[in-house]
Amino acid sequence: MTSSFERLQKQLKQLPGLGYRSAERIALHLLFENRGLVDSLTEALQDAAAKVRSCTICGNLTEEDVCSICLDGRRNGGVLCVVESIPELYAIEGTGSFDGLYHVLHGTLSPLKGIGPENLNFESLKERIDSGQIEEIILALDNDIESEATCYYIQETLIGGFPIKISRIGFGLPSGGGVGYADSATLKNALEGRRNF
Amino acid sequence: MTSSFERLQKQLKQLPGLGYRSAERIALHLLFENRGLVDSLTEALQDAAAKVRSCTICGNLTEEDVCSICLDGRRNGGVLCVVESIPELYAIEGTGSFDGLYHVLHGTLSPLKGIGPENLNFESLKERIDSGQIEEIILALDNDIESEATCYYIQETLIGGFPIKISRIGFGLPSGGGVGYADSATLKNALEGRRNF
Repeated sequence: MTSSFERLQKQLKQLPGLGYRSAERIALHLLFENRGLVDSLTEALQDAAAKVRSCTICGNLTEEDVCSICLDGRRNGGVLCVVESIPELYAIEGTGSFDGLYHVLHGTLSPLKGIGPENLNFESLKERIDSGQIEEIILALDNDIESEATCYYIQETLIGGFPIKISRIGFGLPSGGGVGYADSATLKNALEGRRNF
Repeated sequence: MTSSFERLQKQLKQLPGLGYRSAERIALHLLFENRGLVDSLTEALQDAAAKVRSCTICGNLTEEDVCSICLDGRRNGGVLCVVESIPELYAIEGTGSFDGLYHVLHGTLSPLKGIGPENLNFESLKERIDSGQIEEIILALDNDIESEATCYYIQETLIGGFPIKISRIGFGLPSGGGVGYADSATLKNALEGRRNF
């Protein structure tokens, strides 16, 4: 291993989901099998870093001040879907069954990781709530403790007395999932979330 | 998604082992969670692309003409270990049980993928064999059809009449592996490769 190679591998290893072996494989691919990709990747990285930022309203990706979803006048501006991060926004967009607007928190509350309310995109959520134009908020956060705490915070501290309908997405058996294969926490959620048939 | 973001994601998806989701996750990490990494990664990429190349003797990584292993006078220059690619070289180096030199083929013969002898690092292997200084060649290639074909090619076409001891690494049960869990091809290899006890 040479020093430049080790440095590249170390940088790649910092990317989420890459370990020592996958960083090594990617570095070798770039240096020995696909040198052309080094330049195009570098260019794409610098271009995106220069242009892409957070929508000042909802926190989604944008190259302007406000993202294309917030600007879309055909959407229902009275309903907000609160998500943890951008992939979740696009996952929900992909279902084609939501026509309101989004709010991306860029994380969830986690005292253990040192993430408090001041680290999340709450300020503009508060502004949106205070504007009085929101009629409904759907909390589309994960099924874990941090998300639970985040939902309570939004309900208690941000929504407070506003007459806003608030819900949390359903928990239970995933599509195609079998009762016999589900873990007991999922089954417990599914029982609690039963609906009239 | 913005166009710069999609371009970056598309470039990242070309890296080995990364799919749509992992490329998205890495792009978001770089743009929203760790902007500093964009510059240091770009720098490391360009530095490595400018400096790292193949050792003219064995094909290993180097920033000079010849790599540090080939230059190491304490190693046994009469024994060559032939490997498919650089990670395998370092895997064998990591065992600490080989003190000869290496030869990296940068692939194996595969007519289906259009990889013929002219695409592999055979020219300098031929030169090393023709020099008359090699006494033993260990073929440390995988246990598959392409590697088998590559071993035959080296034996028939490159070594030919030279009085070189040639061997292929052993196949059989991996360390810690159970007979009851091994697939039948592995067990067949293990039976064929049995040794006196």
